[in-house]
Amino acid sequence: MQEITQLHAIFDRTRGYINNFMGVIQPIIDAATDEHTRLYYHHILEEEEQRMGRLQELVPYLEKLSAGKSLDQLSDRDLSQMLSDVNLERFGLHNFREHLELSLYEFKDDETRQLLDGMREKTHTDYLTVKEIMANMSQRFSDAAHPDLTDHDEGHDIHQVDHLKASASAPHGVASVIKHSAPAVTGKKGLTVGSLKGM
Amino acid sequence: MQEITQLHAIFDRTRGYINNFMGVIQPIIDAATDEHTRLYYHHILEEEEQRMGRLQELVPYLEKLSAGKSLDQLSDRDLSQMLSDVNLERFGLHNFREHLELSLYEFKDDETRQLLDGMREKTHTDYLTVKEIMANMSQRFSDAAHPDLTDHDEGHDIHQVDHLKASASAPHGVASVIKHSAPAVTGKKGLTVGSLKGM
Ligand SMILES: [Fe+2]
Ligand SMILES: [Fe+2]
Repeated sequence: MQEITQLHAIFDRTRGYINNFMGVIQPIIDAATDEHTRLYYHHILEEEEQRMGRLQELVPYLEKLSAGKSLDQLSDRDLSQMLSDVNLERFGLHNFREHLELSLYEFKDDETRQLLDGMREKTHTDYLTVKEIMANMSQRFSDAAHPDLTDHDEGHDIHQVDHLKASASAPHGVASVIKHSAPAVTGKKGLTVGSLKGM
Repeated sequence: MQEITQLHAIFDRTRGYINNFMGVIQPIIDAATDEHTRLYYHHILEEEEQRMGRLQELVPYLEKLSAGKSLDQLSDRDLSQMLSDVNLERFGLHNFREHLELSLYEFKDDETRQLLDGMREKTHTDYLTVKEIMANMSQRFSDAAHPDLTDHDEGHDIHQVDHLKASASAPHGVASVIKHSAPAVTGKKGLTVGSLKGM
């Protein structure tokens, strides 16, 4: 059951990250002066809202599972459903990593960049952990139908790029059309890199 | 069962649209000269690939359903699962509409713009139809657990913006950093506005 406890911790953490991320991005939408920029960040936040909606069901379910009976006692169908839900959120973590990377190209202040990059790094580690757990569980419970574990994430050079570095010298980010004064990191929750580290 | 037949037609059509869209966007990724542009379109295509993966299971399932027994004969659990899967793809259609709108800011040639806008318009209609069908079915099958039908898509002015118009006069789209010669619309499948209309 240690795996379920791990999954619970990962998806609970990412819920906190979504809230942080929204606090950073919402001011950009509010300050945007053109439709493309507004649509771009609105779209990203909307996808994260949808993910949050799913996590609000999955996290309590994993919590109940981790406190309860052994996975072997789950019906094949429940097990298969759980694996499929977790697999969807595996993609969710991957996409969130890219939302964070894309946002690095927006901000020029170090504090926000470090906050985003810290979440990016942890999200990537969490993604790899979920991938490994999924592979183990699928093998162990080979009787239950389980989701296609094909990666859509390999063989893409872009995943190897250090976007923190690349964005530092980016000539024309979307940022160029936005005027935002205070670093967005002082948003809703008064987040700082320090508070992130304590998460 | 007419609703299931309608859902099948909608999700089958969107599979074709994903292929068209990929044919239009891939050349941009190949021609991109900076990491931000590459990441941006790579990310969008990856999300559409993930959606395609889910549709490859959902579409045949709906096809089987539409040919078979009445929905009333499905178990509550099967019904609930189906509603939940369709609800996820309702969001998928919404997100695809925005991928299409975002892409309008990339292209300056009329043929590609009309192709993208045609898919955008039909996708939006399909999205509204799915929403309506979901609401009807949820009401009719109120015994089965059904997904949260909350909209994340209302109260956002951005959804009322005519992005075809807005993008026509956009001063600095991502396009400014890309050099692509031939209109991407002559890609993989030799798509034209004419061939789109016949879909
Ligand atoms: Fe995204
Ligand atoms: Fe997206």
